[in-house]
Amino acid sequence: MNVVGGDGLMESGALDLVVGVDLGGTNTSVGVVDDSGKLLLQSKFPTRPRESAAGFVARLAAVIHEMTRRLAPGATLRGIGIASPAANGLRGTIESPANLGWGTVNIIAMVRQHFSLPVAITNDANAALLGEQMFGIARGMKNVIMLTLGTGLGAGIAVDGKILQGENGAAGEFGHMTLDPQGRVCGCGRRGCVETYVSASGLRRTVLDLLAERLDESPLRSISFNDLTAETVSRLAKDGDALALEALTITGRHLGRLVADLAAAFDPEAVVLYGGLVNAGEFLVGPARQAFEQHAMKIHRGNVRMLVSSLNNGEAAVLGAGCLVRDLLTGVEAA
Amino acid sequence: MNVVGGDGLMESGALDLVVGVDLGGTNTSVGVVDDSGKLLLQSKFPTRPRESAAGFVARLAAVIHEMTRRLAPGATLRGIGIASPAANGLRGTIESPANLGWGTVNIIAMVRQHFSLPVAITNDANAALLGEQMFGIARGMKNVIMLTLGTGLGAGIAVDGKILQGENGAAGEFGHMTLDPQGRVCGCGRRGCVETYVSASGLRRTVLDLLAERLDESPLRSISFNDLTAETVSRLAKDGDALALEALTITGRHLGRLVADLAAAFDPEAVVLYGGLVNAGEFLVGPARQAFEQHAMKIHRGNVRMLVSSLNNGEAAVLGAGCLVRDLLTGVEAA
Repeated sequence: MNVVGGDGLMESGALDLVVGVDLGGTNTSVGVVDDSGKLLLQSKFPTRPRESAAGFVARLAAVIHEMTRRLAPGATLRGIGIASPAANGLRGTIESPANLGWGTVNIIAMVRQHFSLPVAITNDANAALLGEQMFGIARGMKNVIMLTLGTGLGAGIAVDGKILQGENGAAGEFGHMTLDPQGRVCGCGRRGCVETYVSASGLRRTVLDLLAERLDESPLRSISFNDLTAETVSRLAKDGDALALEALTITGRHLGRLVADLAAAFDPEAVVLYGGLVNAGEFLVGPARQAFEQHAMKIHRGNVRMLVSSLNNGEAAVLGAGCLVRDLLTGVEAA
Repeated sequence: MNVVGGDGLMESGALDLVVGVDLGGTNTSVGVVDDSGKLLLQSKFPTRPRESAAGFVARLAAVIHEMTRRLAPGATLRGIGIASPAANGLRGTIESPANLGWGTVNIIAMVRQHFSLPVAITNDANAALLGEQMFGIARGMKNVIMLTLGTGLGAGIAVDGKILQGENGAAGEFGHMTLDPQGRVCGCGRRGCVETYVSASGLRRTVLDLLAERLDESPLRSISFNDLTAETVSRLAKDGDALALEALTITGRHLGRLVADLAAAFDPEAVVLYGGLVNAGEFLVGPARQAFEQHAMKIHRGNVRMLVSSLNNGEAAVLGAGCLVRDLLTGVEAA
């Protein structure tokens, strides 16, 4: 267990603190957040896709207990906010996440078996959007879409300043819109879902497609699919590897076309890109902007801003999850 | 000019009445609506795609003047509500409608040159949704999408009971999401827009594709593109014509896939289908429901209802346009 931070804790004495959890398909981040949005303690551990939900929650509880031991005297944890893919904020459940074999679990009840604290949950992308609206690049924006490009593709949507939940708390699943009905098999059981192309996993699959199609040499030829990460592809692109560059360009083009479709549907002020894949920077975002200008309606060209999250990677969802449970504590309508 | 109705007018004496206008790419419908949503007078005339906006408004004004002459003594027109494709409810303009050569026009100012009455405008699909929520099948629904399948494909979106406008009043342009980047040329200047497949015009183009691809005899072979209407295709389908049936099936499948994508994005309770194309009934809606079940996420299958408008064809937008100006008169926030 690796808890980082603590320097700010002594000063934070009597502050009321919350825990924000960003449950990702690959890694889970946990943070202790004060009421100014400062991250006082942080920890990150692998999510283990084949582990049971109970096993995961036990490991999460151990991390939070370790953090509690590190708190300054007088500081109290007042609640736990969780950001997760496939979370249903209206029901308090995680429902058959595509990248974890959990089925539907009542995560709030499970966490409360370890802590007698208020627990709130929302979609990871809604949490990232909340964090970005409170402390990041989306401050003050009322019509804005957050795309989280991690293992999967998530989204949070703000309409007129309010998070769009939908009838069942399941809005914003752009990752499971169909890009190509004859396309790649998706973890959700269907074919050609957008996230099989536009996500870190999608990028890895595009690398395989290119390796199969072409003959050029590339360090990518000596990395297995299981060992391949989006970070490696980005690093190789920075080194000028043509195949890595092409894989990011293709992924960026799909992303730009998606953003053009979302602009037509939602007419937002901006679309904020967030998540591990966005570390590829202009190698991804450049082609995305080009494809956006090509596919967008006239009124959106040069108008809808495609922005990159201004918060440290992984922090927006942790901060947003913290905001969420703080809103619950203060009686503000939870997003 | 052909004004229908009037039987109810004598009883309506002192009622305050509004005019609802549904400006379509092919036809324009005008109605005098009382405060219970009853259509007292109706008229319909062709829109003439190549006519100027001023020419159109002059013809519209003549119809409304004729209706005014028919009103019972004491009855007053209190306002005019207009539903139009490419309408911007926030700005009061119609902006470069794909199916009319108008550019951007301030339709409110133009109509007010003929009448000193309050005039309100909204997207045709928003108006149809308003009408359907007030008097039709969407009564009481808070998260619902209305798709208007006419010359083009429009949409109105209600989120938590409120019409989603977007940053520029341009939300809901699902017709200009991209179905196939290498696909059919669209009136908007791009390729493969959804409405080049899913609309009355899209159906006509699909008929041509099938006539070109196949060899089977069909009465459709003796109808020119300009003479071909969605109504004819529906009638031939009812007569068992295989080609007409196939064209409606293909159109329905595209529609079902679109509705699955919209369910993933918005998580609505229902999607209401409206407009001339929907007269094809189960020939269109059957394949649409099948494709929806095939492409929808697990949580939406058997769950998101695909409904057909319960109002007489063309009435929802006229009634909704009436609601719109009535809301303006009573100070309710206009949708």
